[in-house]
Amino acid sequence: MNRQLAEELVGRLLAAAHTAPSVRLMPEPRFIVICDYSVRKAVNTIFEAANGRAKDAYTGEQAETYSNLKLEGLLKAPPNLCLLCDVGSGRRHGRQRMPETAIYSTVCAIQNLWLAARSEGAGVGWVSILGPPKLREILCIPQRLTLVAYLFLSYVEEFAAEPDLARFGWEKRVVLNKVVSYEHYSAAGAS
Amino acid sequence: MNRQLAEELVGRLLAAAHTAPSVRLMPEPRFIVICDYSVRKAVNTIFEAANGRAKDAYTGEQAETYSNLKLEGLLKAPPNLCLLCDVGSGRRHGRQRMPETAIYSTVCAIQNLWLAARSEGAGVGWVSILGPPKLREILCIPQRLTLVAYLFLSYVEEFAAEPDLARFGWEKRVVLNKVVSYEHYSAAGAS
Repeated sequence: MNRQLAEELVGRLLAAAHTAPSVRLMPEPRFIVICDYSVRKAVNTIFEAANGRAKDAYTGEQAETYSNLKLEGLLKAPPNLCLLCDVGSGRRHGRQRMPETAIYSTVCAIQNLWLAARSEGAGVGWVSILGPPKLREILCIPQRLTLVAYLFLSYVEEFAAEPDLARFGWEKRVVLNKVVSYEHYSAAGAS
Repeated sequence: MNRQLAEELVGRLLAAAHTAPSVRLMPEPRFIVICDYSVRKAVNTIFEAANGRAKDAYTGEQAETYSNLKLEGLLKAPPNLCLLCDVGSGRRHGRQRMPETAIYSTVCAIQNLWLAARSEGAGVGWVSILGPPKLREILCIPQRLTLVAYLFLSYVEEFAAEPDLARFGWEKRVVLNKVVSYEHYSAAGAS
């Protein structure tokens, strides 16, 4: 469905993201909502170049499977969404250890938004093959901000029972008991 | 409430974490469920030392507010939960860009678990002041695994309308429209 996400839905999704728990309640996540076609088109140009290079890295059956994956979505419908983390904004109280938790709070915001979207019939795509330097340039992102994710949002007619990457045989999800160990890390359980 | 979380609830929470979306469906998140008192006690010893150093960094009113924060919880009730990311486990297809998305998928698992816990009357605490090297030693975590988070889970009698850090005046959540900009990053909106 190529219909633009309703503005009030985008508002609810941003609110869901914004109310995600934050380690130390730091005010770090920043959102850029991208609707303008020319901006999405510029981002898509980077995506296509990266996707082309990714395709070239595979051969035979793997290359064919890769080609079947639905990876495009940036131009399908607005909005795209860029998430940034202003790591420096929460420095009032210092941060003794694990400063990466600022970025993790931003990821918690993404997952909140993802579930909220799904519950309202919208899907979220996470584009993980964009080259950050060019994306920063297009979106005018200052160096002090960490670029965490570039997402596209759209209505979805039907949600598959399995992730596409599993359905198309690209990757399998491991069973839970293979990744859980008790009291200490154990490679036996989590092999 | 110092009652141990029911085993089947822990199972449901791990399942919720395990079914979180994964960027590229990589099988990276690893879980250590820690119930044993002696292990939690050893971890708590690192926590207390770090917490003491954190307290010493504040003076006056800030020091007093810090002392009022409920930061302890590791020994209250089992289980504690340690989340790791096996960044190397998904290398089959390579990862063209943004390799940090492997760790972000693990954080999505945490947020899924967090919401699932909350919906079943349990709370999650994220301990962000532990020193990773000592924690690795206690939990026998190999160097190739990234330590993402150390959590404690417990039943909660009542959920406050505001996060504790806001209620105790430690930090304020900024309003949403201050952190959203459109088409490009803008410091005017997201100041």
